[in-house]
Amino acid sequence: MTTLPDDPWIVTPQKIPFETPLALQNGQVLPRFDLMVETYGTLNEQKSNAVLICHALSGHHHVAGRHHPDDKHPGWWDSMVGPGKPIDTERFFVVGLNNLGGCHGSTGPLSINPESGEEYGADFPVITVKDWIKSQALLADYFGIRRWAAVVGGSLGGMQALQWAIDFPERVKNALVIASSTRLSAQNIAFNDVARQAIITDPDFHDGHYRRHNTVPRRGLRIARMMGHITYLAEQGLGRKFGRNMHSDGYQYGYGVEFEVESYLRYQGDKFAERFDANTYLRMTKALDYFAPAADFGNDLTAALKTVQAKFFVASFSTDWRFAPARSRALVKHLVKAGKDVQYIEVESAHGHDAFLMTDEPYIRAVRAYMNNIAEECAHD
Amino acid sequence: MTTLPDDPWIVTPQKIPFETPLALQNGQVLPRFDLMVETYGTLNEQKSNAVLICHALSGHHHVAGRHHPDDKHPGWWDSMVGPGKPIDTERFFVVGLNNLGGCHGSTGPLSINPESGEEYGADFPVITVKDWIKSQALLADYFGIRRWAAVVGGSLGGMQALQWAIDFPERVKNALVIASSTRLSAQNIAFNDVARQAIITDPDFHDGHYRRHNTVPRRGLRIARMMGHITYLAEQGLGRKFGRNMHSDGYQYGYGVEFEVESYLRYQGDKFAERFDANTYLRMTKALDYFAPAADFGNDLTAALKTVQAKFFVASFSTDWRFAPARSRALVKHLVKAGKDVQYIEVESAHGHDAFLMTDEPYIRAVRAYMNNIAEECAHD
Repeated sequence: MTTLPDDPWIVTPQKIPFETPLALQNGQVLPRFDLMVETYGTLNEQKSNAVLICHALSGHHHVAGRHHPDDKHPGWWDSMVGPGKPIDTERFFVVGLNNLGGCHGSTGPLSINPESGEEYGADFPVITVKDWIKSQALLADYFGIRRWAAVVGGSLGGMQALQWAIDFPERVKNALVIASSTRLSAQNIAFNDVARQAIITDPDFHDGHYRRHNTVPRRGLRIARMMGHITYLAEQGLGRKFGRNMHSDGYQYGYGVEFEVESYLRYQGDKFAERFDANTYLRMTKALDYFAPAADFGNDLTAALKTVQAKFFVASFSTDWRFAPARSRALVKHLVKAGKDVQYIEVESAHGHDAFLMTDEPYIRAVRAYMNNIAEECAHD
Repeated sequence: MTTLPDDPWIVTPQKIPFETPLALQNGQVLPRFDLMVETYGTLNEQKSNAVLICHALSGHHHVAGRHHPDDKHPGWWDSMVGPGKPIDTERFFVVGLNNLGGCHGSTGPLSINPESGEEYGADFPVITVKDWIKSQALLADYFGIRRWAAVVGGSLGGMQALQWAIDFPERVKNALVIASSTRLSAQNIAFNDVARQAIITDPDFHDGHYRRHNTVPRRGLRIARMMGHITYLAEQGLGRKFGRNMHSDGYQYGYGVEFEVESYLRYQGDKFAERFDANTYLRMTKALDYFAPAADFGNDLTAALKTVQAKFFVASFSTDWRFAPARSRALVKHLVKAGKDVQYIEVESAHGHDAFLMTDEPYIRAVRAYMNNIAEECAHD
């Protein structure tokens, strides 16, 4: 990684191979795997300033900066991570990765199955949040990081931060769990299943082996993303941005684009269907459905949190109806019951679930303050 | 219609032909049309006790009772309409109809186009709420009903009750607008567009002429209905009914049915795809999107309501997030500003939007009381 003061901040991803077998929660074993990673900043001598960023459903390793000076868009959390940003890469060594099962370079459905010499496709196993933590622990070992100064994530990323604190208590100093939940609700699972059904019933899905048929289930992915996108936004935000504004000149009495909101959603769906792998999408939604951090503790979350050593920062957003503030408050309640140190902020925002990617000022300020404290602790480690 | 005291209440639908052309809002003309109708109770001599029931997206003329003694299910609003029920067929002459564009016997995409001798299919015009009111006014003429004692509807049905009061002020004595809205929000339109796109991009859609290809776009209809169904229910209600209960024996790490909520939704989707016409579904969602009762009044709803003569009963449900209570309160506010008589009830319910079809006690009691008052007024007309 190089930083040119007057230039866009240029970063380069690296693919890290792990040649040892990884036993998965579903009983299968990955014979080997790669993790696609980006790092920002410098690991200090004590290796005490490392921060892991865990991504959400459609995220990846490219968290911040640009790959080329003429890249149109920076990484997905560039507002949060970078020099002088709340997660300050001048103080922290920040690691972003693409999770196992992803479609951005880490081992997943698009990778070659060493056992068959063919792409995994549908044969790639269903991965869980616990599996991800296991692979991320090996990534920490690779960098020689014994303990993360912080594990940070929004949505599905926040679930990983929570699972890290439970599965490796001594390896997480702080967990930042943002716009997340301790488990999916029936409504969450229901939306995920509709998305999966849209993909699976697309005639181009071919039981998940669409690439062998030189096609992809674009229609299904597009519908899944359009629906998902609605649930990421607040009704209020959508209303303010689009209302009933027309894209066409008056009612057309047909099924083309008429309202602005239709134009926006279809564009989002089309773009996503071109760039995202359907098998990865299916797996990411299952990882969400299956997330159950207290499963090994008789579903008693307070018990699961008892051995946690991390301090927690929990944030939720007022208009997030996918992972509503009540879900974050439930986590806080269990942390308090377990006698853990937790800071909680409920942010007034019009951005719904997507607010975790946005820059509502009280949110950015709170993360910055929390991370500043961590940085000062690191300096004294 | 016959009522057998100890037997299920048996009703018989009738198809009423209208042989005069109907000019539609989109500029097209229906050369002729049929309306499929059911009536319950007896029209009094003054014809002052008539109640019109308007249906929602997937409803029809079969409001109450059974067609055969061994029918498994009664009409869709049997809890509300019948002898001794809140809309009491011993006091009112109740009319239920299938709207134009429907797929239950009224003229719609499944009907023969007299101009071509073929089924309309995709060529059937896009119908609006105003078009429905026009056709329903001709239905009132057919029965010799000058003025409805009440026009009643939930959801899209409530929009019709409101439009009736505006378009024919002298023909509506009471309008009952339940779980409805004065217009769709951007989020509502967005969900409708995803549903339409699921249907239209189904390879079996064939530009809406699927029946000429001896097929129906089942996949698309199924996805549309599954998604719609989630939005009709409250998160709380779904949580109470299904939670994270498993249908399968533990995680299967696959894409079959695992959670109870998946089983329920897929069943609902499959059933709907077998019985409902896709072209009708598209048209019903467009009627919702286009609904704009104040359009002829410079989008000033208070102005639109000025000439209304009807008294209003407005009801909303606490967990209805599709047409939230705030939407009903907005209507009430405009009615009050226009100096109209309105009674409003906000019902605590766990049933979401579907609550209008349910039997939450305060709701049923309020409708019963309101309808009792109307019945007493009718008796003195």
